[in-house]
Amino acid sequence: MATKRVLIYGGKGALGATVVKHFKSNNFWVGSIDLAQNPDADENIIVERNDSLEDQESKVISAIKSVLNDQKLDAVICVAGGWAGGNASKDLIKNSDLMWRQSVWSSLITASIAAQYLKEGGLVTLPGAKAALEGTPGMIGYGMAKAAVHQLTKSLAGDKSGLPANSLAVALLPITLDTPMNRKWMPTADTTTWTPLEFIADLFLKWSLGNERPENGSLLQLVTKDSKTEVIPA
Amino acid sequence: MATKRVLIYGGKGALGATVVKHFKSNNFWVGSIDLAQNPDADENIIVERNDSLEDQESKVISAIKSVLNDQKLDAVICVAGGWAGGNASKDLIKNSDLMWRQSVWSSLITASIAAQYLKEGGLVTLPGAKAALEGTPGMIGYGMAKAAVHQLTKSLAGDKSGLPANSLAVALLPITLDTPMNRKWMPTADTTTWTPLEFIADLFLKWSLGNERPENGSLLQLVTKDSKTEVIPA
Repeated sequence: MATKRVLIYGGKGALGATVVKHFKSNNFWVGSIDLAQNPDADENIIVERNDSLEDQESKVISAIKSVLNDQKLDAVICVAGGWAGGNASKDLIKNSDLMWRQSVWSSLITASIAAQYLKEGGLVTLPGAKAALEGTPGMIGYGMAKAAVHQLTKSLAGDKSGLPANSLAVALLPITLDTPMNRKWMPTADTTTWTPLEFIADLFLKWSLGNERPENGSLLQLVTKDSKTEVIPA
Repeated sequence: MATKRVLIYGGKGALGATVVKHFKSNNFWVGSIDLAQNPDADENIIVERNDSLEDQESKVISAIKSVLNDQKLDAVICVAGGWAGGNASKDLIKNSDLMWRQSVWSSLITASIAAQYLKEGGLVTLPGAKAALEGTPGMIGYGMAKAAVHQLTKSLAGDKSGLPANSLAVALLPITLDTPMNRKWMPTADTTTWTPLEFIADLFLKWSLGNERPENGSLLQLVTKDSKTEVIPA
């Protein structure tokens, strides 16, 4: 059987590292794209935080070209992003700019990778947020960036989007992920409503293998209650 | 009666210039913010295209401060923006970056102006696009930018958004505007489905005067048939 290949954008973060491990233990070749190395990955592509969007993209694309050596990808999974609060009278400009860089640039570069290196029938996933389906007055920049990612997902699923034939483009819209950082900063929260990282890693794996695929362009809300997660299309 | 005051972001464009004229002829003090002067306006604030977002915002805000001289605004109306096509395999990065700068920066600066200089009960309007309510595979960067503007509108209408009490934040979502440029580039199109600029200018005027106001946070589609325009909430 031919080696299956996946790229994880944000492969060094808490969710990304979980996804890298899960694909590795299921015999995928795994590349990680992030600001720092993930030693569990087969290859690492390092993004320079201070580069422009165009420079980040062209460097990532040329690194992928040399790493893949004419092979194609079964999946490109983006789990990169950040969070910042702030309403229209507090840090609006600074935080909106930051959120665009952290959440939208990575999703755009993921879309560009998918257009160039995904197999026919491959998977591309982007990181949305359930909150951004409505207004987010207390975290305006974050909501705008995630709304843009949601709309990008629908565009990628559309006719003549530039992705290979039969690709699947979806976004996951979590509420709160069960990460070490969230446990640290919200020590008294009810973690039975937080979504386990392994649940998400396993969704990505199933879809990469062609199993239980959702509808193309879906915005999939992850709603966790009593430590059980439901996947609910928006 | 106290002078009523409005700022038009994009006051030199085809729609913006129509809006400036309409408010002037209804005895408003009118300021224009744009890359070039509009001699019909009472004051002009010029934006430097190559400045960063933070520099554009801080220069616009300090110019407004000196122009308004402690007065507040009845309305801040943003009609600035641009258009670029392209799917995921054609100019994705370049055009998404451009659309962000042209359509989102101006809306963010408008939100910042509204937070600082709008009267209680004032009006802020942002430029959306009906197309961006769905995926836009042939104009990906444009759709993302407009989706972000739509979500920003909903955030500004939300609780504790940082706007003055009882403000009204709405976005207009046109399909095609009846501008000289559109007539030039689409000479054989059916212009009875294009929305007249005067219709929009008059909506802004009515809402600025407190008349026939739509629900806060509305995304208002402008659907023109047989030269008659309906305003339909999304």
